[in-house]
Amino acid sequence: MKTRSRQLNGAPMLPDRSFFNRLAEVARAETLPRFRSGLDVTNKLSSGFDPVTEGDRAAELAIRALIEENFPDHGILGEEHGNVGLDREHVWVIDPIDGTRAFIAGVPVWGTLIGLQKKGRAIMGMIEQPFTGERYFADENGSIYSGPEGERRLVTRQCEALSNAILFTTSPHLFAGEEMEKYRQIESQVRLFRYGCDCYAYALLAAGHIDLVIENGLKPYDVGGIIPVIEAAGGIITTWDGGRPENGGSIIAAGSRAVYEQAIAILQR
Amino acid sequence: MKTRSRQLNGAPMLPDRSFFNRLAEVARAETLPRFRSGLDVTNKLSSGFDPVTEGDRAAELAIRALIEENFPDHGILGEEHGNVGLDREHVWVIDPIDGTRAFIAGVPVWGTLIGLQKKGRAIMGMIEQPFTGERYFADENGSIYSGPEGERRLVTRQCEALSNAILFTTSPHLFAGEEMEKYRQIESQVRLFRYGCDCYAYALLAAGHIDLVIENGLKPYDVGGIIPVIEAAGGIITTWDGGRPENGGSIIAAGSRAVYEQAIAILQR
Repeated sequence: MKTRSRQLNGAPMLPDRSFFNRLAEVARAETLPRFRSGLDVTNKLSSGFDPVTEGDRAAELAIRALIEENFPDHGILGEEHGNVGLDREHVWVIDPIDGTRAFIAGVPVWGTLIGLQKKGRAIMGMIEQPFTGERYFADENGSIYSGPEGERRLVTRQCEALSNAILFTTSPHLFAGEEMEKYRQIESQVRLFRYGCDCYAYALLAAGHIDLVIENGLKPYDVGGIIPVIEAAGGIITTWDGGRPENGGSIIAAGSRAVYEQAIAILQR
Repeated sequence: MKTRSRQLNGAPMLPDRSFFNRLAEVARAETLPRFRSGLDVTNKLSSGFDPVTEGDRAAELAIRALIEENFPDHGILGEEHGNVGLDREHVWVIDPIDGTRAFIAGVPVWGTLIGLQKKGRAIMGMIEQPFTGERYFADENGSIYSGPEGERRLVTRQCEALSNAILFTTSPHLFAGEEMEKYRQIESQVRLFRYGCDCYAYALLAAGHIDLVIENGLKPYDVGGIIPVIEAAGGIITTWDGGRPENGGSIIAAGSRAVYEQAIAILQR
């Protein structure tokens, strides 16, 4: 079924959840068969290629083809195949495999991130995890989970104090110098912290399982699909200096205003 | 169906894979409904109980009941409900929820570990991950995976050098002093390292996705279900001083002899 990019009256038509689902399906067809595909280290070194790179590229091509067919007026910012029309009103932001190290190691916490921006602001997004069959989607109507546990509306947890919070970051090695000191100060105050979840940490935050994610060095495609999922679930996601997160960089995401303010006060010292 | 603990000739009968599957099922019925059950931090603090503690206890009780009914002559070493008959020929070693921090945070890398020892030696074991539907089982016939990818025999990867290896540990904060120095030295030499996978790291090692796991401070129930899964897949698991791993402590597991020897040479300096 082809989605028309313009309605009869000529106004631009926006994608809906079913279009995001189609994007996730075509990406999944390229990523999942390559996950745990058993191509070993030796093969990888001799061929110069590896399943995660192949999956990344093939998934992004599949996503781009579907977007270009249905929304030819939209721009695309992708990780693997360059950028097109970034000055257009609507721009798609794609990370076909976020969490390449998890993918390589066989851990099901990588994901496909698909976001749509309007005039530079993230308005729709999806975090897709093919192996567990989980999908986190958001538009202006809210943030929705579908997976083995069924389908439900995502709402962040209203944790009231940093000392009760669960904190995630991909790796403490992300930080150096002053950033490391600030990160460690927050880590020392939370109830529980954990490393190594990539985009999955943001999904868990949107779902109300954890309270805080702090990272740095993020690219626009690392956050494009994530921002709406968190914001529409009631969470907050900004740069460490409190600005809009669409361009990536140093990012903080929190499920509650209280935890956000306590953490950002430390980051901004 | 009740499994008889003695055959007609009076010789003791051992459990088979289907009995381990039954144990996994009764545990799963207690753990999975409590995973991501949405009892928030505030509720936990006011009640003094939390889903992971309840799941841990209930799952262990369910496992113990089935063992006691079918193998009344066997001893049981459990995390939550104490030990019975540890001097008997056969002893079960149970960790109903390994990876409680992952469980609390909603990350599907926790598992139920069930092991059987004969005269102090691990001979059968299972790593069960209810959320992803994955089950890693081993007896004297080999190590078997069943899950979303189907069923297959587990074989570790024959990585030939530490510099090509993928290393996992639950957290770098496990180590201090001289242990930390040794751990960091290994970490600095591998191709890729990752934190935060608990028992799931050993499952990935048995399945040939990663090459090395290094941890310390483990209890017998942290390794009882894991040892046979790794050994029957062709891997090596010992203490840092090269001894049998059944009692836990500082543990190294490797998929290949080459990686094991290069890593243990550093640990034993």
